[in-house]
Amino acid sequence: MSTSRTKQELRKDPIVGRWVIIAPERLSRPQTLLNDDAISCDSFDPFLAGNEDATTPEILAYRDGGVANGPGWRVRVIPNKFPAVRIEGALDKRGDGIYDKMNAIGAHEVIVECPHRETNMSRLSVENIREVLWVYRDRLVDLKRDHRLVHGLIFKNKGTRAGASLDHSHSQLIVTPIIPIAIQEELDGAREFYDYRGRCIFEDMIQQELATEQRIVLETEHFVVFCPYASRFPFETWILPRHHSSHYENITKPMIEDLGTVMKTVLSKLEIGLDDPPYNFVLHSAPFASQDLPHYLWHIEIFPRLSRVAGFEWGSGFYINPVAPEEAAKFLRETEIED
Amino acid sequence: MSTSRTKQELRKDPIVGRWVIIAPERLSRPQTLLNDDAISCDSFDPFLAGNEDATTPEILAYRDGGVANGPGWRVRVIPNKFPAVRIEGALDKRGDGIYDKMNAIGAHEVIVECPHRETNMSRLSVENIREVLWVYRDRLVDLKRDHRLVHGLIFKNKGTRAGASLDHSHSQLIVTPIIPIAIQEELDGAREFYDYRGRCIFEDMIQQELATEQRIVLETEHFVVFCPYASRFPFETWILPRHHSSHYENITKPMIEDLGTVMKTVLSKLEIGLDDPPYNFVLHSAPFASQDLPHYLWHIEIFPRLSRVAGFEWGSGFYINPVAPEEAAKFLRETEIED
Repeated sequence: MSTSRTKQELRKDPIVGRWVIIAPERLSRPQTLLNDDAISCDSFDPFLAGNEDATTPEILAYRDGGVANGPGWRVRVIPNKFPAVRIEGALDKRGDGIYDKMNAIGAHEVIVECPHRETNMSRLSVENIREVLWVYRDRLVDLKRDHRLVHGLIFKNKGTRAGASLDHSHSQLIVTPIIPIAIQEELDGAREFYDYRGRCIFEDMIQQELATEQRIVLETEHFVVFCPYASRFPFETWILPRHHSSHYENITKPMIEDLGTVMKTVLSKLEIGLDDPPYNFVLHSAPFASQDLPHYLWHIEIFPRLSRVAGFEWGSGFYINPVAPEEAAKFLRETEIED
Repeated sequence: MSTSRTKQELRKDPIVGRWVIIAPERLSRPQTLLNDDAISCDSFDPFLAGNEDATTPEILAYRDGGVANGPGWRVRVIPNKFPAVRIEGALDKRGDGIYDKMNAIGAHEVIVECPHRETNMSRLSVENIREVLWVYRDRLVDLKRDHRLVHGLIFKNKGTRAGASLDHSHSQLIVTPIIPIAIQEELDGAREFYDYRGRCIFEDMIQQELATEQRIVLETEHFVVFCPYASRFPFETWILPRHHSSHYENITKPMIEDLGTVMKTVLSKLEIGLDDPPYNFVLHSAPFASQDLPHYLWHIEIFPRLSRVAGFEWGSGFYINPVAPEEAAKFLRETEIED
């Protein structure tokens, strides 16, 4: 296993059209993949202010002072040390018999959300969270200028069980020359609905959720938060903007202000109500090239990792959710957090 | 959480058309969902011969003797004690505003693979495995006579990390009035390829894999085993029949004979090569109602649970696989097992 000759590449499943990143690691033994050690809290923290030399050189930092790659920053963006995609090179799209592949071109960045060691975004100040949300925007705006790249995926893995390898609160950005299949399926489904009904499915969902209220977690001036009708996971929670916009990077200052508060509140409810669970969130936004799409709405999907996903779900796309979203929403509504 | 008023139902995501089973459990506290305890090997085993009274009454059993729900069986099928779907009642398909739902009608059964306490199917005798494979067929043949039900999903969760709650080797069957989205996507993609090329995509894949050989794990008279070109997971392994057939339940005796050997060999290679990893497998087969489909091939997908799936994969469908399938296949080919 130690001499993989396959280089990183994007490969397309010829049956369903799903693109996968093949990013071979140097493995002494394949069993080293079976690593479930909890993150030790007294382990060295490369993301801590002062340890900048332990990370790759920064791409962007919001600073109170100091110099690049030194302390003084509030939020910091660095290339992932083990990138799944790399910015150098040509796409080189090509066939491989019946298969399709291309070089794994793109950007894989880490957003270090705070200079101090904090493990949960919920415990960052609202101002801090707002700056993180601005960084998301800034990076998308910058990267979409590279016309080889068509989509940007921002996500967070919180906790070992959710796939995090470091406990210092951080999120990630993967910008690729392909559209992730889940986003493509949303785009296709939403387009079909729009062509047939002339309305945005997301806005119809928001209207119905606001009318019935039973799955609503939270409402603010700019956002609606609810547990979706067909939730795949217990306490799956979506954050949607009230006003139409398909691209997150077009978000406005007042919306960021509001979204910072919403994130702080929702993540705090999850932390307090569910005993600081591991979780993932994924920001769904339209492909770079497109103009604003009338049928699509950017949104954030949050998945607490409470129940193990058995695994057959992967092979079937068929989920069994032991908690009705109405119950989950009620529980989260009633979970009190200190303001 | 202890008084969920939502009954079990199937709900459709209006955006991508994914059906989800909402099967509320009575939860004292939601945190009880966060249960990752390893299965204790000295715990009571309800699947052990002699403990039949600890399980639901059997649906089917292959017996050397004894009476129903007593010992003497070799393979035994029982209703899942906590079924996600139930056979009683009407489908009652209905709208809920913009949403669609129906009663969670169907069958959720457990196939107890052996009377003795064995945790890995790989350690069952080839004859035993063949009988399990026959039971899969028998149950599908029986259940497809219920015209409310359109698809049968057979799968296995091996090990706590793969979602198993009991260590005694068993698999499960969920038969539903809907087609799981992953199967539907395969059917759609394969149909598109067939309409365009006039060939079955699965058979093209098999031809190319046999020609290049680099991803082949094993070949027999009736089956080809390989790590797929766009593997989502390390050591993802597919078992495909060489000769066209879209429905598993039409499998022949000689094919079962061969498949038993193939399963024993592949699962043993995974066990020995990867230190008895947790794994899932899912049997992909065409919907009940359809005649044999020229564009679809039933097959088995096996996923060892080596690397944690970060979780953003759920939100994006975008997988990062740290082991190239060529390396995985080579490793499995070279992993020796005692015959």
